[in-house]
Amino acid sequence: VVTGGQPAAQRIPGGSTDPARQQSLRRHNLALVLAHILSGGPAPSRADIAGQVGLTRTTVSALVEDLVQARLVTELPALRSRTAGRPAVPLVPAAGTLAAVGIEINVDFLGVRVLDLAGEVLAEKVLAGDHRSSDPDRVLRSVATLVTTVLGRLDGDIPVAGACVALPGLVDSPAGPLRLAPHLHWSGVDVAGRLATVRALRGVPVRLANEATLAAQAEAARRGPESFLYVSGEVGIGGALVRDGRVRLGDHGWAGEIGHLTVDPRGPECDCRATGCLEVFAGQDALRRAAGWELDRPVAELSTAGGPAVVEALRQAGEALGIALAGAVNLLDVQQIVLGGCFAPLAAELVPAIDAELRRRVLSAAWAPVQVQAAVVGDYPALTGAATAVIDAVAADPASWSARIA
Amino acid sequence: VVTGGQPAAQRIPGGSTDPARQQSLRRHNLALVLAHILSGGPAPSRADIAGQVGLTRTTVSALVEDLVQARLVTELPALRSRTAGRPAVPLVPAAGTLAAVGIEINVDFLGVRVLDLAGEVLAEKVLAGDHRSSDPDRVLRSVATLVTTVLGRLDGDIPVAGACVALPGLVDSPAGPLRLAPHLHWSGVDVAGRLATVRALRGVPVRLANEATLAAQAEAARRGPESFLYVSGEVGIGGALVRDGRVRLGDHGWAGEIGHLTVDPRGPECDCRATGCLEVFAGQDALRRAAGWELDRPVAELSTAGGPAVVEALRQAGEALGIALAGAVNLLDVQQIVLGGCFAPLAAELVPAIDAELRRRVLSAAWAPVQVQAAVVGDYPALTGAATAVIDAVAADPASWSARIA
Repeated sequence: VVTGGQPAAQRIPGGSTDPARQQSLRRHNLALVLAHILSGGPAPSRADIAGQVGLTRTTVSALVEDLVQARLVTELPALRSRTAGRPAVPLVPAAGTLAAVGIEINVDFLGVRVLDLAGEVLAEKVLAGDHRSSDPDRVLRSVATLVTTVLGRLDGDIPVAGACVALPGLVDSPAGPLRLAPHLHWSGVDVAGRLATVRALRGVPVRLANEATLAAQAEAARRGPESFLYVSGEVGIGGALVRDGRVRLGDHGWAGEIGHLTVDPRGPECDCRATGCLEVFAGQDALRRAAGWELDRPVAELSTAGGPAVVEALRQAGEALGIALAGAVNLLDVQQIVLGGCFAPLAAELVPAIDAELRRRVLSAAWAPVQVQAAVVGDYPALTGAATAVIDAVAADPASWSARIA
Repeated sequence: VVTGGQPAAQRIPGGSTDPARQQSLRRHNLALVLAHILSGGPAPSRADIAGQVGLTRTTVSALVEDLVQARLVTELPALRSRTAGRPAVPLVPAAGTLAAVGIEINVDFLGVRVLDLAGEVLAEKVLAGDHRSSDPDRVLRSVATLVTTVLGRLDGDIPVAGACVALPGLVDSPAGPLRLAPHLHWSGVDVAGRLATVRALRGVPVRLANEATLAAQAEAARRGPESFLYVSGEVGIGGALVRDGRVRLGDHGWAGEIGHLTVDPRGPECDCRATGCLEVFAGQDALRRAAGWELDRPVAELSTAGGPAVVEALRQAGEALGIALAGAVNLLDVQQIVLGGCFAPLAAELVPAIDAELRRRVLSAAWAPVQVQAAVVGDYPALTGAATAVIDAVAADPASWSARIA
C-alpha cells in the first residue's frame, strides 16, 4: 500500500487529493499506531510513537484521537516531563471495551475464553466431556450453549469482535470446513457456519484454526522472535513449527502433525487408521491406559502419582516422543522444542527419556544439543491463541472496527 | 543497496558524485543485467533488458559492454528488426570462458564436473571407489588428483572461477568444516582448507555444501518456483525441502536429513549409531544386501534385474521410504516428492509401495494426494548443483570477477 522511503501519513495533509488513496493511507497508519500501543512494551506517548514510526506529532495525535474514540486505546494519567514542554500521556490498550472470543472443541473438553484488547480474561468456562467418535450436531449444540452462557456473563455493552475456534484436526482455511479430526471422528464439518447461527455471535466473523497452531501462536507471542517446534499434548498430539516468531503453516496450513509420525510401524492402530503413530504411544489416552487409569482422570496427576506403572507409562511416552522429535529435528534443523498442553506439567518426568532419544538419534546432537522446555503459556493455550487471533484481526484494520461500532 | 521507487542506474550519470556510491550502484546493476541474460529464457536484446529492469537503453548498453569485456556475455548475430530502427542483438551467457568446478565426495564415488556460464559441461570424471569408514587424508589426496586431472583437460586459458564440494553429511557453513558424514566415518574434516592447497585451485574460493541440498538446488533451478521434498538416494539418504523454488536450510543448514528418520526403532543399527533409520532399510547398501548383491554392483540395475529377491528388496525399500515420507509430509505439509539419486531410475518400482504408505499414513491424503515423481536432473545432480553454486557466486557480483581477470 505504501511506497517510497517517506512515511505514509505525511502525505495525508499535503499531497494527494485522491480520496480513496487518502482513505487507504489513513487505514494503514491507524493500524501502525495501534500496533505500537499493543506491542507489549512500556506504554508509549504520542511523541514516542511519532519518533518510532516516523510520522509527525500532529498526524499521530489525530490517529490516536480516532483510536481513543473507537475505544481501542486509553490514555493513562499524564507523567510529569523531565524536560520543558507538555507532560507525556502514556497510551495503553483499552480494557473491557471489546470481547474477543476464543472457542476450543477438543476430544475431552469444550472451552470458551473471552479476552479484551489488553489481553485480560473477561469470562471463561471449560466443560469436561467425552467427544471421542461423537456426533458433530450434538457437540456443536453444547458449544453453542457454552458460548451463550459465557457471553451472557459479560457487561451487555461490550461488543463482540469475533470468534475463533481451535480444532484438533486439519483446517486449511479460516472459513473451514474442518477436514478431519481423527479422535472426534469428524470429517467435513462446517463448524464456522454452525456457530455463526448462535445469537450471541450473529453478524460477527467466526474463523477456524488448528489447536496446536493457535497454542504455538500464543507461545510465540510470549517468547518473541524465537524458533522452536511446539508439541501440543491432548488426547491427540499436534504440533507447529515456529521460525523467528512466526508459525510456518505449509502448503495448505496442515504442517506440524507430529502426532501421526510413525514411531513403530508394527504398533497399535491409531484413530487415523494408520499403525504406530506417536499418538498411540504418548497421547493422553495412551498415558492413561499405560498407567492403568480411567480415561477421565487428568493426566497432569501423573507427575505426582508415583508407582511403577506410572513411571513406566511416562518413560514409554517420553521414549516415543523422543523418537518422533528426533526425526522432526533431523528433518527441520530446529534446536528448541517446547512441550505444551498436558506435556508441560509432565515435562520434568518426560524430558529424561526424550533427551536420551534426541542424543542418540539427532545427527547433529554433538554440535547443537536440542533444548527441551515446558511451554510458558499454560492453562488451555489454544483458547488464548484463538482469542488473540481475533484481537489480531481487529488490530490489523482498526478502521473497520470503528466503522462497525459507530 | 538501492532505495526508492526509481531504478538505481539512472542515478549514475546524473545525481550523486560520491564515487563509492556510484561504484556500489554499478555493481548492483551489472548483476541485475547479467541475471536477465542468465535467466534461461529467450536471449534478450539490450532494449529488452532496458524495458524489463527499468534502466535507460544507454545505461544498459554501457553495462553490457562491461559484461562482454569480462567475457561473461556474448553477442549473437543481429536479428533483422520487424520495425524500423537498429537490428536487435541477442545476448547470451558466454560459452567456455570460465570454469565452475563442482566436486563430490560420496561414499562410493568421487566426481568432478566443470561447467561454463552457459551450463555446458567442459570436462568431468567420476571415479568409483569404496570410502566407507575411510581415511580422510587418503580420500582427499585422490580428490586432489582427480581435480588436477579434470582441470588439466581444459584449455589452459580458461580461468577457474571457484569450486564447490558436495558432501554426504552435515555442513553448516560454506567454509566448513564437514561436521559429520556417518558412512565415511568422517568428523570435523577441513575439506575446504585441504582442497585450497591443490595447485589448480590455488587462490580461488572453495566452498562446501550438503550433497542433497545441492542436488535439490539443481532440481529447483530446472523446475522453477515449485515446492517439493527432494530425497537423494545414495549409500546414505539425504533430503531437502524446497519451497517456491528455494531450499529451506533450517537453523544451521542441516535440514532435510530424512535418512535418519526412525522407521523402526527395533531395526538394525545405522552408521550414525541410532537404530532403524530409513537408510538401513532403503539406502543403496540396504537394497544390495536385500537383493543378495555385492556392494559394488550399481543399484540402477535393480530396475531390470527381476527375480523374487530383487522385487522384495524394492518393496521393502519402498515401504520404508513411504513410512518416512508420510511422517515428513504430516510434519511439513508439502504435496510433491521428488525422488533423486539412485531412486530416480528406480522410481517405477519404488512408487507403488511408497504410495500405499502415503495413502495410509498421511492425515490429509484424501484431500490432497501426495505426488511422487522421479527427479528431472539425473546423472550426479549434486555435481551439477555444486558447479552451479559457483556460477551463482560469479553472477551475484560480476564486478569482482571483472577485477579478478583484468
